Amino acid sequence: MKYRSLQINTPSRVVVFAFSAVILLGTALLSLPIAVEGGERTSWTSALFTSASAVCVTGLAVLDTAGHWSTFGEVVILVLIQIGGFGIMSLASILALIVSGKLGLRARLNTQAETRTLGPGDVRQVIAGVAKVTLVVEALTAAILTVRFMTGYGEPFGRAVYLGVFHAVSAFTNAGFALWPDSIMRFVGDVWICLPLALAVVAGGLGFPVYAVLRKSWRRPSRWSLHAKITLGMSAILLFGGALVITILEWNNPKTFGPLTPGLRILAGFFHSAMTRSGGLNSVDTSQMNENTWLVSDVLMFIGAGSASTGGGIKVTTFALLGYVILAELRGEPDVTAGRRRIAEQLQRQALTIALASVAAVVSGTLVLMMLTPFTLDRVLFEVVSAFGTVGLSTGITAQLGPAGHLVLTALMFVGRLGPVTLGAALALHVQTRRFRYPEERPLVG
Amino acid sequence: MKYRSLQINTPSRVVVFAFSAVILLGTALLSLPIAVEGGERTSWTSALFTSASAVCVTGLAVLDTAGHWSTFGEVVILVLIQIGGFGIMSLASILALIVSGKLGLRARLNTQAETRTLGPGDVRQVIAGVAKVTLVVEALTAAILTVRFMTGYGEPFGRAVYLGVFHAVSAFTNAGFALWPDSIMRFVGDVWICLPLALAVVAGGLGFPVYAVLRKSWRRPSRWSLHAKITLGMSAILLFGGALVITILEWNNPKTFGPLTPGLRILAGFFHSAMTRSGGLNSVDTSQMNENTWLVSDVLMFIGAGSASTGGGIKVTTFALLGYVILAELRGEPDVTAGRRRIAEQLQRQALTIALASVAAVVSGTLVLMMLTPFTLDRVLFEVVSAFGTVGLSTGITAQLGPAGHLVLTALMFVGRLGPVTLGAALALHVQTRRFRYPEERPLVG
Ligand SMILES: [K+]
Ligand SMILES: [K+]
Repeated sequence: MKYRSLQINTPSRVVVFAFSAVILLGTALLSLPIAVEGGERTSWTSALFTSASAVCVTGLAVLDTAGHWSTFGEVVILVLIQIGGFGIMSLASILALIVSGKLGLRARLNTQAETRTLGPGDVRQVIAGVAKVTLVVEALTAAILTVRFMTGYGEPFGRAVYLGVFHAVSAFTNAGFALWPDSIMRFVGDVWICLPLALAVVAGGLGFPVYAVLRKSWRRPSRWSLHAKITLGMSAILLFGGALVITILEWNNPKTFGPLTPGLRILAGFFHSAMTRSGGLNSVDTSQMNENTWLVSDVLMFIGAGSASTGGGIKVTTFALLGYVILAELRGEPDVTAGRRRIAEQLQRQALTIALASVAAVVSGTLVLMMLTPFTLDRVLFEVVSAFGTVGLSTGITAQLGPAGHLVLTALMFVGRLGPVTLGAALALHVQTRRFRYPEERPLVG
Repeated sequence: MKYRSLQINTPSRVVVFAFSAVILLGTALLSLPIAVEGGERTSWTSALFTSASAVCVTGLAVLDTAGHWSTFGEVVILVLIQIGGFGIMSLASILALIVSGKLGLRARLNTQAETRTLGPGDVRQVIAGVAKVTLVVEALTAAILTVRFMTGYGEPFGRAVYLGVFHAVSAFTNAGFALWPDSIMRFVGDVWICLPLALAVVAGGLGFPVYAVLRKSWRRPSRWSLHAKITLGMSAILLFGGALVITILEWNNPKTFGPLTPGLRILAGFFHSAMTRSGGLNSVDTSQMNENTWLVSDVLMFIGAGSASTGGGIKVTTFALLGYVILAELRGEPDVTAGRRRIAEQLQRQALTIALASVAAVVSGTLVLMMLTPFTLDRVLFEVVSAFGTVGLSTGITAQLGPAGHLVLTALMFVGRLGPVTLGAALALHVQTRRFRYPEERPLVG
C-alpha cells in the first residue's frame, strides 16, 4: 500500500538536507585556525557541537563563546544562527503553508482534494514576510541595546553596535549565544538590557503564522485564526505563570534572586521564564538555582514556543491540543472543541504522536547520557530537555560531558530542531487511503 | 448538555467509596495498641499510610512491617491486602464487564444502545471467578513456600505456613509487603523462594479478563481476545526485556548483583523486572542499584501491569495502544490497527487521556515532594512512580519523608490505584450525544 505521496516527503527531506549542509559548512569554518582566539585549533566534535548549536539556534556551548573564538569565529556563529533562525522560520512556514493552504496570505492552491501545490509566488511571499519581521524586530532590539551599551557602559559606537546586533540576532532567533562568559548575568539589574532581549525572544517564539494573522487583523481578535489564538493565549499563560512560579521559588535563594531588589527579582523571574521558552540566555546563574526551579524549567522548555517560530519544544499548540483532548474526555464530549472550533481527530492523533515521540526522545537521551556521564539525574534531564527544546540553558555541565556526550547532545539538538517540524508536516500531509478497514475491537485501558 | 448518564458515575463512585471505607477501617485497627509490638502506639499518619499502602496493594512501608507490628497488626495488614487485591480485581472486572459487555463470560446484556445493564448473575460469576483464581494461585504459591521454609530454613510447620501464606498473598495481590526487615534479600540465592514469588506476581498482574480468555481457549491463541493478546505479549516483552537491561546494568555492581553467581544474577534481574511490574518485593538492595537501573525501573513501573489485575501503572494495553497510534501515524495509516483489528478512535483518545493524566500526576507529585523533602530527583521520582504505580519499591527514603510527604504518597497511591481504573471505565461509558458540531479547524502542531 502506498500511503504517502512523493510531494510529502520531499519538503521534509529538503529541510533535513539543508540544515545538515549548513551545519557541516559551519563545522568546517569553525575548525579553521583563524576562527580561534590565539590560534589553538578546535577539536572537530567541539566545532560540530558549536555549529549545530548555532544552526539549531540552541545556544549550548562547550567553549566560552567570547574567550575561545576570534571575531571571525564569532561572526561565523552570528551568521549561522541568523541562517538557522531565518531558515527554520521560513521553511516551517512554507511547510505549514503546504499543510494548511493558508497563513493569512493569498495562496494559489490547487483545490483538488489531495494534491495541494504551492506556487513560487507563495514561497517568495513567505520568505519576504519572514525577512521583514526578522529585520524589524532585530533592528529595533539592536538599536535599544546599542544605545544602552553606549550610554550605560561607555562602549565605543562600533563595539556597541556589534554587541547590539549580535545579541539582538541571538535573542530574536532564540539562539541564546552571548559574548560574555557569564551569558548576561552582569546585566541582571539592567531593565534596558533584559527587557528588550526578553521581548525579542518572545517575539521570535510566536512564529510566522501568528505575525501574518496579527498583521492582517490585530485589532479584531475575533477574526484571528484558532492557531493564533491558541499560540498567543498559551504563550501568555506559560510566560506569566512560569514567571510567577520561578520568582517565588528563587525569591530567597542567596545565590540567584536573593541579592536583588524585589522589582529586579520579578524582572529576573520574567526573564528566566521567557528564556525557558527557548531563548537560552541567563541573567542569573542557572547552576545555582534550586532543583525545583530546574524541574519547572524542564516542563516549560519541553513545551517550548510557537509553531513555525525560531523556538523549539513540542510547541504550545501541541501542548494546548493535548489539554483540550483531556478536557473533552473528562467532560465526556465526543468532539474535541477549542474556541468554538472542532479539532479534527487526525490532528489530535498528530499532537499525541509528536508529544509521545518527544517524551521518548527525552527519556532515551537522558538514559544514554546518564550512562555516559557521572552527573545526577536533575542536571542530565535539564541538559537533555534544553538540547531537545533548543533552549540552551544549562546547569553548567555542558563542557564536561565528553566527546560522546557532546555527540548525543548534538543529535538531540538536531532531532529537537527538525523532528517535530518535519514530523508535523509529514503527518499532516498523509494521503488518506481507506481501501478496507479491519473490524473494530476494544481492549481495556486503564 | 448532559453528557454522562447516572449509571456511569455510580459504579466509579462505589469503588472510590468502598476503598476509602476499607482504608479508614484499616487505619483505625492499626492505630490500636494491640496492633503494635511492645505497645508503643502508631501515629495516625503512619497508620493511614500503612493501611492505604496495604489496601492499594502498594507495599511502601514507613515502619518495619515485622519489627513494628504485632501478629495482630500483621494479620490486619494481610487481610487488608487480600481485600484490596481481591477488591480491585473484582471491581475492575465488573466495571470492564459493564464497559465491554463481555469478558469471555455469558453476559446478559441489554442490547439497547446506551443502557447496558448487568444482572446480579454476572457479578456473582465475576466474583466467583476472581476468588477461584486467587485461591488457586495463592494456595499453590503458599504450598511451595511453606515446604521450602520448612526444609531449607528449619521453620516449624505453623510458622512456615504463616510465612508461606502471608508472602503468597502479598505476591499474588502485588502488595509487596514482607515479614523481614530487608524484604526478601536474604533469599536472593534461593530459586525456590524467588521464582514462585515472581510467578505469583506476574500471574496477579495479568488481570481477570486474561484468565477468562485463557480458561476458555488457552490452546487456541487465534481465538484470544485482542485484550488478552496485547496483555500477554506486552507483559512478556516488558518482563524479559526489563530483565535483560537490568541484569546488564547491575551485573558488576558490587553492592547488588556483583557477589552473585552468573545464574543468580540472571534470576535477580528477572526478579527485579517482575517486581517493577507492580510486585514491590526486592531481592537485592534497591537503594544500592545504580541510577540508570532506577530510571529503567521508573519506566517499567509507570507502564505497570494488566487491566483489571492487582497490578498498577497506566497498564500494558494503554501503553501498547499509544505505540500502535504512533506507528500508524508514522506509517501514515488512517486507521490504527493491532492484530488485524481496528482500534476505535474513542479508545485511542482514552488511552491518551489516561497516559497524559498519569504523567501529570507523576510530575505534580514529584514537584511537591521535591519541595517538601531534601532528597534528590532520582530518588523522589522513583518513590513517586512507585507509589503511583502501586509498586512499593523504594530507594530507601520512604520513612524519612515526614508526615506531609507521607500524605502526598498516600494520595498518590490512592489516585494511582483507582484513578486509571475508574477513569478508564467512566470514559468508556460516555454517552455520545452529538447534537451539533462546531466547524473543524486545524491549528499547526510540532
Ligand atoms: K535557544
Ligand atoms: K505493590
